[in-house]
Amino acid sequence: MAVVASAPERSNRASLDRLTALVSSDLAQVNTLIVARMQSPVALIPQLAGHIIAAGGKRLRPMLTLASARLCGYRGDRHLALAAAVEFIHTATLLHDDVVDASGLRRGLATANAVWGNKPSVLVGDFLFSRAFQLMVEDGSLKVLDILSRASAVIAEGEVLQLMTANDIDTTEAKYLEVINAKTAALFAAAARIGAVLGERKEADERALEAYGRNLGIAFQLVDDMLDYSARQSELGKTVGDDFRDGKLTLPVVLALKAANGEERDFWRRTLAEDGQRDGDLEHAIALMTRHGTLTATLERARLYAETARGALGVFHDSPERRALAEAIDFCLERGF
Amino acid sequence: MAVVASAPERSNRASLDRLTALVSSDLAQVNTLIVARMQSPVALIPQLAGHIIAAGGKRLRPMLTLASARLCGYRGDRHLALAAAVEFIHTATLLHDDVVDASGLRRGLATANAVWGNKPSVLVGDFLFSRAFQLMVEDGSLKVLDILSRASAVIAEGEVLQLMTANDIDTTEAKYLEVINAKTAALFAAAARIGAVLGERKEADERALEAYGRNLGIAFQLVDDMLDYSARQSELGKTVGDDFRDGKLTLPVVLALKAANGEERDFWRRTLAEDGQRDGDLEHAIALMTRHGTLTATLERARLYAETARGALGVFHDSPERRALAEAIDFCLERGF
Repeated sequence: MAVVASAPERSNRASLDRLTALVSSDLAQVNTLIVARMQSPVALIPQLAGHIIAAGGKRLRPMLTLASARLCGYRGDRHLALAAAVEFIHTATLLHDDVVDASGLRRGLATANAVWGNKPSVLVGDFLFSRAFQLMVEDGSLKVLDILSRASAVIAEGEVLQLMTANDIDTTEAKYLEVINAKTAALFAAAARIGAVLGERKEADERALEAYGRNLGIAFQLVDDMLDYSARQSELGKTVGDDFRDGKLTLPVVLALKAANGEERDFWRRTLAEDGQRDGDLEHAIALMTRHGTLTATLERARLYAETARGALGVFHDSPERRALAEAIDFCLERGF
Repeated sequence: MAVVASAPERSNRASLDRLTALVSSDLAQVNTLIVARMQSPVALIPQLAGHIIAAGGKRLRPMLTLASARLCGYRGDRHLALAAAVEFIHTATLLHDDVVDASGLRRGLATANAVWGNKPSVLVGDFLFSRAFQLMVEDGSLKVLDILSRASAVIAEGEVLQLMTANDIDTTEAKYLEVINAKTAALFAAAARIGAVLGERKEADERALEAYGRNLGIAFQLVDDMLDYSARQSELGKTVGDDFRDGKLTLPVVLALKAANGEERDFWRRTLAEDGQRDGDLEHAIALMTRHGTLTATLERARLYAETARGALGVFHDSPERRALAEAIDFCLERGF
């Protein structure tokens, strides 16, 4: 795979270690809160929710809330419950996503819908979503409720838009960006922004953290969509080629279609729009992306958004929090190498 | 069908007419608000949401909010947005229910999942749910947010509990009541209670409207579960025997199991627990329920809850609103005849 050639030395790789270390005590409390608040007298709920929440995940979104709050000088403990609410919203969308995508693997484990079926995944998602709002209501900030309820509606819009562009080989780069901006970046943006709200910072700081989160989220999803075609399955924790099999028009494909000759376009039409995939098609798709350099180009786009995210942090003084949030950008990018 | 024998004259039937007339001007504004707030730049969302919302439905839950607010002397217009929020929550659960049940028919029309597939139904449900919270956040009452976010979590718990009791022929009447209390009565209770919150009435009045809604909701669901075995399809607007085919342990079945001899129990085990239904099984199931009088017994239970709902209205002075809310009880009951 072309993009692997440019990978830096392992030992120099950016990681989430700095961010994780910085918020580790807060994050431990968030994890305790998550486990406590996913409880229910209905046993299947904590069982199923525990499966996906314990599967780990990076806790990237709640860490954005924790670090942003500290960056903004917040010294209380309201950020803990709000970080848990952010993770619940994220988990609810994952559960519903996996039903929608009929995925079998997430974070290297069988998906909840593969283990328990679609029905409980839909309903436990609803439960976690409601629980997220209960946590916010207990916190009592209408401003935070406004930010996160708006983000939730936008996420759903993004997911529906993604469905509508699936199998549509005329999907443009602009439409693709609209999808990932809504389905992924909206929650990153909201998670970071509420840190500024907690710190009672001026509007400009809120906007800066919102911009940081939004651009980081777009970069994150671009890399994710690139990895879907280039990662080793063991590293990805999900099945390579899922997006191809689902007929999703992600950027590597959108760009390959833009560069396609007639024969290549016929290939994409058959495999994505007409539901006729055969053995070897995924390999051929990857070969076409490599020929046109679309995986590299997707990474290049991610790099631009990452730089914008980095720039947004410029309004804050240098601090351990700012450095950790900056390194999270590098981590999201370098997953791509 | 045994229960039809006791049906009163058609002309004397209770209806929602009094309630509908009383709140008609408010309800028209709620309907306008519903249409306005289900809009989205993502075209499929208003399309799919419009399908289920326009299909009508009785708007019973939002009418409870409207009439309760007026009963409590509230004279502003906050009840309009909150009634719309209640209907959005209800619609979201319907969309997810139909996915869970794989239903083909609702309110006499094809279900959204039958028309568009499961995926958009899950996601548009999420959108409407988020939109409901946005409406509440705009209203700005943390107390209302608390009541409705709690109710939403309880609804999801009830739906999961219903899944867990499906196909379980040892389900007790107590467990069944727990299910319908959560999946249905919680929203009726919350919808009525927020009327008292808007009217800034004392705690006892809140509790009275909560009890009215809760008992009305239980009666409503009992009648619904009875009708699933005894209504004419054209009247029900959904497929007769759906619950039987889904292996749901509703009260008519729970009571028939309690009264069953060995051979009957074998029949229930085969048809409900072992997934082995054949032609004629539904008719035999109905015959067993008729033999043991369980449809009538289910109606009798509904009558008791209806009387409790009526009693809860006793703390309020006589008024057009109180009479309309009382007639809504009769309507819910008499659907059963």
